[in-house]
Amino acid sequence: MAKRIAVFGEVMMRLQVPGYDLLSQAGSLNFSFSGTGVNVGSALARFGHTGYLVTTLPMNSVGDAAMAYLRKLGLTTTFMMRGGQYIGMYFLENGFGARPSRVTYSNRLESSFNTAPEGTYDYEAIAEEADVVHFCGITLAMNDSVRDHMKSLAKAVKARGGTVVFDCNYRPSLWGADGYEKAKPHYEDMLRLADIVMMNEKDAIFILGMHTDKETRSEQLAELIPEVAAQYGIRVAAGTHRSINGDNTHSLQGFIYKNQNFSYSKKLTFSVYDRIGAGDAYTSGIVHGELSGFSPGKTVEFAAAAGMLAHTIAGDTPMSSESEVLRAMTEAVGDVER
Amino acid sequence: MAKRIAVFGEVMMRLQVPGYDLLSQAGSLNFSFSGTGVNVGSALARFGHTGYLVTTLPMNSVGDAAMAYLRKLGLTTTFMMRGGQYIGMYFLENGFGARPSRVTYSNRLESSFNTAPEGTYDYEAIAEEADVVHFCGITLAMNDSVRDHMKSLAKAVKARGGTVVFDCNYRPSLWGADGYEKAKPHYEDMLRLADIVMMNEKDAIFILGMHTDKETRSEQLAELIPEVAAQYGIRVAAGTHRSINGDNTHSLQGFIYKNQNFSYSKKLTFSVYDRIGAGDAYTSGIVHGELSGFSPGKTVEFAAAAGMLAHTIAGDTPMSSESEVLRAMTEAVGDVER
Amino acid sequence: MAKRIAVFGEVMMRLQVPGYDLLSQAGSLNFSFSGTGVNVGSALARFGHTGYLVTTLPMNSVGDAAMAYLRKLGLTTTFMMRGGQYIGMYFLENGFGARPSRVTYSNRLESSFNTAPEGTYDYEAIAEEADVVHFCGITLAMNDSVRDHMKSLAKAVKARGGTVVFDCNYRPSLWGADGYEKAKPHYEDMLRLADIVMMNEKDAIFILGMHTDKETRSEQLAELIPEVAAQYGIRVAAGTHRSINGDNTHSLQGFIYKNQNFSYSKKLTFSVYDRIGAGDAYTSGIVHGELSGFSPGKTVEFAAAAGMLAHTIAGDTPMSSESEVLRAMTEAVGDVER
Amino acid sequence: MAKRIAVFGEVMMRLQVPGYDLLSQAGSLNFSFSGTGVNVGSALARFGHTGYLVTTLPMNSVGDAAMAYLRKLGLTTTFMMRGGQYIGMYFLENGFGARPSRVTYSNRLESSFNTAPEGTYDYEAIAEEADVVHFCGITLAMNDSVRDHMKSLAKAVKARGGTVVFDCNYRPSLWGADGYEKAKPHYEDMLRLADIVMMNEKDAIFILGMHTDKETRSEQLAELIPEVAAQYGIRVAAGTHRSINGDNTHSLQGFIYKNQNFSYSKKLTFSVYDRIGAGDAYTSGIVHGELSGFSPGKTVEFAAAAGMLAHTIAGDTPMSSESEVLRAMTEAVGDVER
Amino acid sequence: MAKRIAVFGEVMMRLQVPGYDLLSQAGSLNFSFSGTGVNVGSALARFGHTGYLVTTLPMNSVGDAAMAYLRKLGLTTTFMMRGGQYIGMYFLENGFGARPSRVTYSNRLESSFNTAPEGTYDYEAIAEEADVVHFCGITLAMNDSVRDHMKSLAKAVKARGGTVVFDCNYRPSLWGADGYEKAKPHYEDMLRLADIVMMNEKDAIFILGMHTDKETRSEQLAELIPEVAAQYGIRVAAGTHRSINGDNTHSLQGFIYKNQNFSYSKKLTFSVYDRIGAGDAYTSGIVHGELSGFSPGKTVEFAAAAGMLAHTIAGDTPMSSESEVLRAMTEAVGDVER
Amino acid sequence: MAKRIAVFGEVMMRLQVPGYDLLSQAGSLNFSFSGTGVNVGSALARFGHTGYLVTTLPMNSVGDAAMAYLRKLGLTTTFMMRGGQYIGMYFLENGFGARPSRVTYSNRLESSFNTAPEGTYDYEAIAEEADVVHFCGITLAMNDSVRDHMKSLAKAVKARGGTVVFDCNYRPSLWGADGYEKAKPHYEDMLRLADIVMMNEKDAIFILGMHTDKETRSEQLAELIPEVAAQYGIRVAAGTHRSINGDNTHSLQGFIYKNQNFSYSKKLTFSVYDRIGAGDAYTSGIVHGELSGFSPGKTVEFAAAAGMLAHTIAGDTPMSSESEVLRAMTEAVGDVER
Repeated sequence: MAKRIAVFGEVMMRLQVPGYDLLSQAGSLNFSFSGTGVNVGSALARFGHTGYLVTTLPMNSVGDAAMAYLRKLGLTTTFMMRGGQYIGMYFLENGFGARPSRVTYSNRLESSFNTAPEGTYDYEAIAEEADVVHFCGITLAMNDSVRDHMKSLAKAVKARGGTVVFDCNYRPSLWGADGYEKAKPHYEDMLRLADIVMMNEKDAIFILGMHTDKETRSEQLAELIPEVAAQYGIRVAAGTHRSINGDNTHSLQGFIYKNQNFSYSKKLTFSVYDRIGAGDAYTSGIVHGELSGFSPGKTVEFAAAAGMLAHTIAGDTPMSSESEVLRAMTEAVGDVER
Repeated sequence: MAKRIAVFGEVMMRLQVPGYDLLSQAGSLNFSFSGTGVNVGSALARFGHTGYLVTTLPMNSVGDAAMAYLRKLGLTTTFMMRGGQYIGMYFLENGFGARPSRVTYSNRLESSFNTAPEGTYDYEAIAEEADVVHFCGITLAMNDSVRDHMKSLAKAVKARGGTVVFDCNYRPSLWGADGYEKAKPHYEDMLRLADIVMMNEKDAIFILGMHTDKETRSEQLAELIPEVAAQYGIRVAAGTHRSINGDNTHSLQGFIYKNQNFSYSKKLTFSVYDRIGAGDAYTSGIVHGELSGFSPGKTVEFAAAAGMLAHTIAGDTPMSSESEVLRAMTEAVGDVER
Repeated sequence: MAKRIAVFGEVMMRLQVPGYDLLSQAGSLNFSFSGTGVNVGSALARFGHTGYLVTTLPMNSVGDAAMAYLRKLGLTTTFMMRGGQYIGMYFLENGFGARPSRVTYSNRLESSFNTAPEGTYDYEAIAEEADVVHFCGITLAMNDSVRDHMKSLAKAVKARGGTVVFDCNYRPSLWGADGYEKAKPHYEDMLRLADIVMMNEKDAIFILGMHTDKETRSEQLAELIPEVAAQYGIRVAAGTHRSINGDNTHSLQGFIYKNQNFSYSKKLTFSVYDRIGAGDAYTSGIVHGELSGFSPGKTVEFAAAAGMLAHTIAGDTPMSSESEVLRAMTEAVGDVER
Repeated sequence: MAKRIAVFGEVMMRLQVPGYDLLSQAGSLNFSFSGTGVNVGSALARFGHTGYLVTTLPMNSVGDAAMAYLRKLGLTTTFMMRGGQYIGMYFLENGFGARPSRVTYSNRLESSFNTAPEGTYDYEAIAEEADVVHFCGITLAMNDSVRDHMKSLAKAVKARGGTVVFDCNYRPSLWGADGYEKAKPHYEDMLRLADIVMMNEKDAIFILGMHTDKETRSEQLAELIPEVAAQYGIRVAAGTHRSINGDNTHSLQGFIYKNQNFSYSKKLTFSVYDRIGAGDAYTSGIVHGELSGFSPGKTVEFAAAAGMLAHTIAGDTPMSSESEVLRAMTEAVGDVER
Repeated sequence: MAKRIAVFGEVMMRLQVPGYDLLSQAGSLNFSFSGTGVNVGSALARFGHTGYLVTTLPMNSVGDAAMAYLRKLGLTTTFMMRGGQYIGMYFLENGFGARPSRVTYSNRLESSFNTAPEGTYDYEAIAEEADVVHFCGITLAMNDSVRDHMKSLAKAVKARGGTVVFDCNYRPSLWGADGYEKAKPHYEDMLRLADIVMMNEKDAIFILGMHTDKETRSEQLAELIPEVAAQYGIRVAAGTHRSINGDNTHSLQGFIYKNQNFSYSKKLTFSVYDRIGAGDAYTSGIVHGELSGFSPGKTVEFAAAAGMLAHTIAGDTPMSSESEVLRAMTEAVGDVER
Repeated sequence: MAKRIAVFGEVMMRLQVPGYDLLSQAGSLNFSFSGTGVNVGSALARFGHTGYLVTTLPMNSVGDAAMAYLRKLGLTTTFMMRGGQYIGMYFLENGFGARPSRVTYSNRLESSFNTAPEGTYDYEAIAEEADVVHFCGITLAMNDSVRDHMKSLAKAVKARGGTVVFDCNYRPSLWGADGYEKAKPHYEDMLRLADIVMMNEKDAIFILGMHTDKETRSEQLAELIPEVAAQYGIRVAAGTHRSINGDNTHSLQGFIYKNQNFSYSKKLTFSVYDRIGAGDAYTSGIVHGELSGFSPGKTVEFAAAAGMLAHTIAGDTPMSSESEVLRAMTEAVGDVER
């Protein structure tokens, strides 16, 4: 049963140094357009749903290129607005082994998205069209005007009985000094509006200021997530624990908390080709499982497999179909497919 | 003592997405020309023999490009015919880690090779020139006309005392429903004509319908290969067991059965750069060992090392010299050579 | 007033040798997806209309890549069907100066589009959605089944009061020996169904077998086009005369015949970057002028300018906006825009 | 006699679409770092002088890449400051024939250069080191803080007997509505400080509001430049008249006004590979001629030839040596040099 | 009637900066292998003859790459020797318009070819195999040992009734000071051995020291070539006059002198993509005309057209077939071929 | 406290086959300029010192490109001389897994550096400018003239109280037969002049002919290095033990011997992206530690971490800053930095 999902968020231009060169060694950059909303909406479109991106892009050739790219990703353009002059950008230098990858942002605060004035988006029209709306904490960090758009749209969707998804995704560098203090009230607003929340114990401790005497991450999680869910009226809370291994593989274990119960995925260990955006693939898996009526156990395995596959795909944006994720859940890696 | 080897088979154009992108993410393709016959003939030319490719290519710029490429690989052009209009093609998307590689074929049944009419090849002239002729099961799957070319050429070579090599290489997708049933009589024809056969226990069970109560692959192999050799009058049977490991390395162990005895290579474990065509490198090693009078033990180690090295080379076609294979048989991986 | 235009036709994969190398000198190919329908529909989408592509693509990664590319071009996917296994392809080697460009086709007759069975397209649904439908003579050359699809769709649109556009686009190599004889009845069927026809005097003479005693192309045109329009009930007939100059520039003059009157564009002379598909830009200009209520004089100037700009754009598919075409109609080439 | 020239200005990152694709057709960008100051300083370094760039770059990997690139160009780093977070960027889409090139700017007002606080540059230290200092009108358009840096540095150099060069380079899009009115007082300040000024009659008319009854550009120039020179105490005024021809070649004629006399270069007509920054090559030629004691006639021919050659070089920044410019002044285009 | 042509000469590795960058702007180089002998032999192979390259290449991976490349060009490897350690190389920076192309050589005097010891080549075996042998003046400039190889091989071929072709191709930079004096005796030796000579009036004047009172190149040619032919017993003398036009096109007119008569080709004017090696295409056309029994008039038109086409092909080596040259002799440049 | 370091050595042009192709499979090469001196000087410049390269480059476009590249690396050009005609070059084919990398040299003995005549370098001027001078055993292998430059410069620096660094770096292929015998006196000369020496037990045994009864490398090291230091008056001796593991990772352990004490780094195990030049990063770490007053223990950990990071960087030349090395000493590999 295909659903209609609106994703609200900024489109960033990713400028990636090819191969493993540093920017100072290179003469060219590969570019693409992404963002948490782009990634989640596009992944859900690939799972058979309709993904409406709600954003604002500049009215120039960079905005045209972004529009073309987003159409290619399968996003529906109905709610992509044009206005302002700039797009947010970031440079990516791929790490190798002992040398970590490095992201350098250009100035995104003057972007078309972050300067979109009141009245840019027709919240009611979007709410009428969408069964689900997705937001993330990166957007919440931008400025008051963007936060107003977020909350107004969330309320409009909720008012019409739609589902609100919120991914906490706290980025310390975006909130600056006293970040947690500044962020808390806004996070609380979004948590109260949300039905499905992506988070883990760290968000509870650092953003919401909750307390636990437990020492392991697992125990903290088991104690705090139910408290958060109860306090803010959250139907589904889900997230991951990631570790980076000595041989440069990553390990990922997903969890979902629903109906007072936790389900955990297998701990998956895998080689990483492109780390960025893989968390959004996990989110898309959780949302797809929920929309498709999967059991929590199947949902969390599906989301973890979707997350794993996203690490093997170039670019921020997941590209796997539902059948590819289902196969990755069950089969060992195989030989060439022909 | 350099020999003259004729290889009969289709030339395919390989259209490979660069790096690890999907076709839908890419804008360019790297191309090359290959095929089982191309790979085996070229590898043997690199070991010092003369490799005659027996095939048909279209009389247009694609055929010209293929001819140029095949000359570059070191194949002798005497028996490369020109006619028809098309070349078979396949798209290759490289997998990464948990995501398998993917091959998508274009329509090869109307290719110049697969529509080459009776009278295209002068079997007697080829048989006069060649000490050895090589065929494979992919070619056998094409159509009756191609099968007629194969069998006629094999008979002509055998009649003049030449050696016939046949690689079973059963591809289920090429034979369709009831494939084994359709394939069996043709395989039996080729096995009766062949002196050296590339196969393993699965071919015996599935294609030839043989039975065994053994459970492990090794035991099945040990029981069935001697039966096949006896039944079809095969002088040398050889093949490999491959496994794909959790860390994305592959393991390969070769065997050879000759004079009622099995010899096995060391089990080699190695990283894989380009999987496709590596089996043909193993075949070329077996043929080279036989033509050079190596002991079965040396032959199988040589073939396994040739196969391993082919996994480290871009493209379908092996590129290693005899001395490089010999070194890989004996030495650990070394530091930069300078 | 944006209109809805359906374009019916095959999607071809263009495999272009980069730069000015021959295929035999190259190791990579740039690829894109195009076709007359793709080009016209995409150009009209860029002029602000909705372009529905009616076609069939294979259900594999090549079809996925084509879908993604066509979305990027701005085409609406509602009527893009999936089925069959193959896509038509062509290789392009760019000429330089005294050396002409060269196109080599792969086998397109087994493509998904050309083997799409009866019942693939819902003619009524398309006719209900579209104000205009566009066909071309290349498609007409394929086979009876494709011709049935064409005529059925044209009738359905006509029956609902929609506009039928037909581009004669006769390609001798597609019709084979006695081509004109074979083609004539099918062309006549389409001309009777069409409201807007792209053609020139050569089509009248060679396909329709009309006679003229005039000697210059201009005189022949002036005599024959009105006859054709009268005979087949065509509302608008339009086309171009092209010449290739000694300095490698091309000259293009457009004409339009409507309401018993001819209008001609200025003769434009310009440098050529990518010749292929430029005729489709001219067609899109004629259709856009008609849909927008331009005078015939403005329409033909707009179409010629659109055609000229398409020669400056990489790939088969026009990329210019209405404002860019309008500016090219009136201004001299300018310095850098910033 | 090599001199020491300080150039004050912003470093821009140029992000160029390869070949003749539009940004929406491309997936990669070639990048380089340039700016009027960069171009002039680097060209003068290539003529044998020392070029000190006075600018501010961010303290991150983009700033590091810029530093490395500027060193490669031959600029001396003594006065390149690090601070702030961003670099100005622009996208370049190359035009072809009838389609003009297109430049799209990112947000440069928050760049490290444009936000460099008071106290960033040690004017006295620079003035002590430099024989000449160069400024341009683009920089003057930025903001008051940048204008303060300009004027303070110009005064410091003048006070120590150094030469001040000012290139009017008025860009309407940077000054906005009522631009000429806003700009005039700042231009007047700079003109009063300048010894050598790059300008033509349009600057006199539009920025300075001067009046002439002459109708041709040549006559206007001949009347107005002497007035400007007299009024602001300018020792040397120089500039060019450019025209773009129907065959896409450009024509350029330079002039210099010195000691109450005009000298004009030959009118040069040439093919253009990369238009951007070619004006800075002309400036560098004027400055080099003045610093080297060339006669005005030789200076203006040298500058015009330097400008012409810069159109044949990839990137904004001139790359020709003095001997290459001298040869281009005197010789016809030759065959391959070997 | 296909002939067997041996070409004696050095294989050079061409390292070309992509596009129009300078070496100091680039980070990569395109490479290929060429040389006068390579170019002539390969062009003749493309015209249907067998081209034996007589040369020496190093026994390392650079030599392997050269061998593979030369096979791809269609050269027969029988007389390509392996020995020594190095290959000659040159860097090519493409000019644009007013900026000439630039060639920079690496040290070629220690190359495998130039250090090949006595006994490297079996002159008698080559002479037995070849109907024709080709040499050029570049080779003659190398050293005494290379000159001995040349003259010995020429004598062996002549002794068996074969045809000797010599291309004067005097390069001042290779002969150094007093170059003409040093060169003259060696040129005289080769001219006495040669049947077909590529030269023009400048060679007669500067190398052979002949005198003429004529002033135009045409008159000098008409006077001197018959004298040279008579003095040295040359059957066919042929060459070209080239001019470079203001619009960057080149003009070429060929001549042939045979049986006491001159024939001239049309003067061809064309755009140039790759200048280097185009003279060798002209030579190959002369040789092909002579070997095929063309009339002198047809031969010189064929050679000029072959030369023209070689300017449109990337790389030093001509790539046109006989039918492509014949078409270029007769037809205007056409539209896309499909 | 930034120091001034002079590095004496040849600049080599590295011509690297992209990706993992063999040279015979490729059509392009990536190039850069490096050398032991370049690598060490550039690494030290990145650590905040001034790096003067003392070398000679040809006066042509290859030399210009090298100069530009070396400026980009941050080297100071004061003592880069221009003269001669050639640059040393090497080809690099990257290995993969079981296939080792391969380096093939062009003829370097006629390079500008190796033919620089007496009087090329002003030893006194360099010695006055530099606190430290660095040499290596590769340079020592070239010829007597180069060795004279080395020793003269070392003496001049020592005479003024500067520090002499010598890296033994014995390359068997450069010294030929009886290499150790030929090399020994020159190594002894350099060891007597050196304050800091890069070496290990193999250098002591093979070059200096020292004897030990110990069997393990560690024991040999512990016995021989103090003897060498005592005998030649060396203040600091340092080096590494490297091993290549079955999974293609490398392990590296550094040692430093100073004040009669050994310090060892942790044994680091890591993935390798580019092996070449990594030893020079280790050297630069030792020199930086010494110049910065680090304890021997910190110095050797810093050097080992610098060496490890250099294996993750494309090209021969280290690119890490001091803070990046310090972080790599202490932290586990992290997630993306943003």
